[in-house]
Amino acid sequence: VRAQSRKTMAKSKFEYVRNFEADDTCLQNCWVVVRLDGRNFHKFADQHGFKKPNDERALQLMSKCALTVMEELNDIVIAYGQSDEYSFVFKRKSNWFKRRASKFISHVVSQFSSSFVFYWQDYFKDQALLFPPGFDGRVVLYPSNQNLRDYLSWRQADCHINNLYNTTFWALVQQGGLSNSEAEEKLKGTLAGEKNDILFLEFNINYNNEPEIYRKGTVLIWHKIEETIDKRITTPDAPEGKNVVVKRTRNKLLPFHMDVIGDKFWEEHSQILADS
Amino acid sequence: VRAQSRKTMAKSKFEYVRNFEADDTCLQNCWVVVRLDGRNFHKFADQHGFKKPNDERALQLMSKCALTVMEELNDIVIAYGQSDEYSFVFKRKSNWFKRRASKFISHVVSQFSSSFVFYWQDYFKDQALLFPPGFDGRVVLYPSNQNLRDYLSWRQADCHINNLYNTTFWALVQQGGLSNSEAEEKLKGTLAGEKNDILFLEFNINYNNEPEIYRKGTVLIWHKIEETIDKRITTPDAPEGKNVVVKRTRNKLLPFHMDVIGDKFWEEHSQILADS
Amino acid sequence: VRAQSRKTMAKSKFEYVRNFEADDTCLQNCWVVVRLDGRNFHKFADQHGFKKPNDERALQLMSKCALTVMEELNDIVIAYGQSDEYSFVFKRKSNWFKRRASKFISHVVSQFSSSFVFYWQDYFKDQALLFPPGFDGRVVLYPSNQNLRDYLSWRQADCHINNLYNTTFWALVQQGGLSNSEAEEKLKGTLAGEKNDILFLEFNINYNNEPEIYRKGTVLIWHKIEETIDKRITTPDAPEGKNVVVKRTRNKLLPFHMDVIGDKFWEEHSQILADS
Amino acid sequence: VRAQSRKTMAKSKFEYVRNFEADDTCLQNCWVVVRLDGRNFHKFADQHGFKKPNDERALQLMSKCALTVMEELNDIVIAYGQSDEYSFVFKRKSNWFKRRASKFISHVVSQFSSSFVFYWQDYFKDQALLFPPGFDGRVVLYPSNQNLRDYLSWRQADCHINNLYNTTFWALVQQGGLSNSEAEEKLKGTLAGEKNDILFLEFNINYNNEPEIYRKGTVLIWHKIEETIDKRITTPDAPEGKNVVVKRTRNKLLPFHMDVIGDKFWEEHSQILADS
Repeated sequence: VRAQSRKTMAKSKFEYVRNFEADDTCLQNCWVVVRLDGRNFHKFADQHGFKKPNDERALQLMSKCALTVMEELNDIVIAYGQSDEYSFVFKRKSNWFKRRASKFISHVVSQFSSSFVFYWQDYFKDQALLFPPGFDGRVVLYPSNQNLRDYLSWRQADCHINNLYNTTFWALVQQGGLSNSEAEEKLKGTLAGEKNDILFLEFNINYNNEPEIYRKGTVLIWHKIEETIDKRITTPDAPEGKNVVVKRTRNKLLPFHMDVIGDKFWEEHSQILADS
Repeated sequence: VRAQSRKTMAKSKFEYVRNFEADDTCLQNCWVVVRLDGRNFHKFADQHGFKKPNDERALQLMSKCALTVMEELNDIVIAYGQSDEYSFVFKRKSNWFKRRASKFISHVVSQFSSSFVFYWQDYFKDQALLFPPGFDGRVVLYPSNQNLRDYLSWRQADCHINNLYNTTFWALVQQGGLSNSEAEEKLKGTLAGEKNDILFLEFNINYNNEPEIYRKGTVLIWHKIEETIDKRITTPDAPEGKNVVVKRTRNKLLPFHMDVIGDKFWEEHSQILADS
Repeated sequence: VRAQSRKTMAKSKFEYVRNFEADDTCLQNCWVVVRLDGRNFHKFADQHGFKKPNDERALQLMSKCALTVMEELNDIVIAYGQSDEYSFVFKRKSNWFKRRASKFISHVVSQFSSSFVFYWQDYFKDQALLFPPGFDGRVVLYPSNQNLRDYLSWRQADCHINNLYNTTFWALVQQGGLSNSEAEEKLKGTLAGEKNDILFLEFNINYNNEPEIYRKGTVLIWHKIEETIDKRITTPDAPEGKNVVVKRTRNKLLPFHMDVIGDKFWEEHSQILADS
Repeated sequence: VRAQSRKTMAKSKFEYVRNFEADDTCLQNCWVVVRLDGRNFHKFADQHGFKKPNDERALQLMSKCALTVMEELNDIVIAYGQSDEYSFVFKRKSNWFKRRASKFISHVVSQFSSSFVFYWQDYFKDQALLFPPGFDGRVVLYPSNQNLRDYLSWRQADCHINNLYNTTFWALVQQGGLSNSEAEEKLKGTLAGEKNDILFLEFNINYNNEPEIYRKGTVLIWHKIEETIDKRITTPDAPEGKNVVVKRTRNKLLPFHMDVIGDKFWEEHSQILADS
């Protein structure tokens, strides 16, 4: 017992170590972006038989995880994903967890990672998950709306460049019979137009007809949905209750595969940047 | 095609947004501690039928996840866990991912979270996981060995205080028939000795005989293990191969439930702090 | 000699300590404000016989130092001073010293402090400087133009509140014959209107007629000045040289004592925020 | 009056801008080093007729400023200076201004800069100060005593290397009649021993006999001084007062020009690192 009292008292003696925690509050009035990336996902994809150049199951699972993140955490207004990465944008005025960077990073990465395992089987019906995967994360602040749009444009331009390369590379390998290194050699230094020509002339593939989810990635945003639901109510003239049809609006997350580089998307969804 | 070329060129136009990433390198020559905590785990425990005051399955699962973190990531020399939290200590000289705080946090939290779902069924055989759980994380730096020891002592003293309280509380409720609020009222302001008396006099429980995993939490450290394995070799006089017994040492993670506040643990495992 | 060679070699052995320097780059595309304050200036003012409630010599010296700071350092677009404080605003896109916070702070504070001593005698002709004074500094980032305007409004509202209080306080003491503590007591809890009434009814002072430099503080901004200068040139028909009158524009710092809370100032000087 | 009330109320509306200040607390239990450097001091030295390779007046003035910094600010246990730079070490446990980095930097740099102008004439009797000079500053944290010693060793090794070079360079120019670029060319790639040979063989200079202040720089530390002072007291048998001799100890700053790379200095002044 005496030892236990000593320990109780000891706690206050040790508590000074709390003062070593640094304050990592994100600057006010900036967009807070958390981006996560799969750890060693090249190898992970091979081990789990991902289809090349794109595995639709993997992309759908990634978006399901992102959706869970947006529903579970607060103040995320838009997310953008491609390949094994996803970016989440917290609104400028968010004061979630007092804007602590470590909270933003850890909650996003944790919820995404647990969801990835939890929902795996829903998307990979014939492929067991062999081990728990890892994702790393970072936080970046953007002071202006233009900076934020440029960030998302950067990621979507990256998606385009990689996907055009990968589509051409795997056409050369899978349909053209080239080895990986032969395909790599052939594509070295080629411009976009030349890759398009290879696809069209050698494999009769019109790149612009490839699925948008591959070419554009996935945007998740909130939509106001009008729902019609049946609701049972009791009224003076129906004391035993009766069914009525009720309309209500609620926010629902919807995925899009569209261009976010031009102005059109932002004009149609002006509420995203109109955060106040 | 022209639109695609524009996008390729555009990427470089957007790349300036990279410069908004802040450098979050951890100060050199400090111990780097990442602590994670379950998000809303009080509710999570209720929803998944955790036993009170301690659920051994949950503790074992937490330690399995911690073990996976230590095996998958680099440079973690000791971990300490209790309740729904776990602390991981990276060695002073670690240069893993250039000591970036966001990398330390996100890799630990991600690997832990995905492992939690992945290994759940191995520990909760009769209880399905209802939804993907979340963990938050933070990073703290400790410049001296004494600071680090005091940090771990702080967490173990916290374990002691909480577990003594919880053990008494749930004895009053489960065996004493008190309501939660009656038990809370009865314990308000009591010292360690008084809680021990309640346990012993009213319920014949000697707190010091409670399992150490509950009273001390769990320490994970690397141990040099001498293994004897069978190996098949070929020699001139046994060209067809023969079995030989080979000894080898390797590092293996082992869990302990012991006091880390006193000197004994650190004298017996002096290699932990002798990091160079 | 051998000892010296050892020292030369030694230097590279010690150079690892450079890696302990933290990166303190200011977030891109934010206004960078450095504010400095006199250290113990209440006492300093007493020791150097500052007039109460305002000492014009001190205010002019402060502005002379601020002017020197703006001329010596790069990228400062506006400065605002009152009492013993001055704020300097570096433009959003400034990349001076790679936007390192410690460079912004130390250069501003250093140049201001050395100027304060250097120019002291020009303003305090009958009062020697008794010892070298100190100023402290801090850096704050503002992401939007509105945030920056609100920062400057905050400092000017502070100027107004303090000056109204001080003007009334010293009227009560100097003209009304109250002791300091009596004056303090009398003003406790009074609103702006009540202070105005005291000034007007008891001392026949119309606060709005007090000098603007006291009521509004000082704004320093760059102005395009058209200058007419004599220049000596040589031409074919005047090989021996002749004087011509040349017009040129150059940027010159000018002090103002005007309202920066309303829109008028910003409309008239729209180039300040139009930084690109 | 109404406008004034509005301004008073307005202040609270603007005060939100305070939340944009970042917390820059230095990690606990680390040595805090502030180093300052003269801005453009190469040019400054030329404009003020500094003697080459060393100007003793300038070095003495620098140390006088450093002394003022140590006396005016709290918790500085040692300072080291050479050429146009000075480093100040705040003790590990210092909680001066809550360990805010901006406070450490700005107070050091400000006090040093104002002192430089204030004391200039005491050291440069025949040379007016032409304009107010600037110094920049930075803050670096060192977790261990060894790191701190290595930092100071790094600066002293730098002093040695630069001074040996400069001494040889200016001997070649001033006594050898070489142009600056010829001297530079001759010294390119030479080792310490070769520079010693040039000095000794060509100019009969034994580098080791050069003044220590040039070769080692200046260390400022606190010393306990025993003072004997006359004090006038009154006693029953001397009601009119009498003089008595009183001994007292006080801390006084003393400059040294000695090696701080080896152990001797630290053994003789063990109180510096024994900070608690």
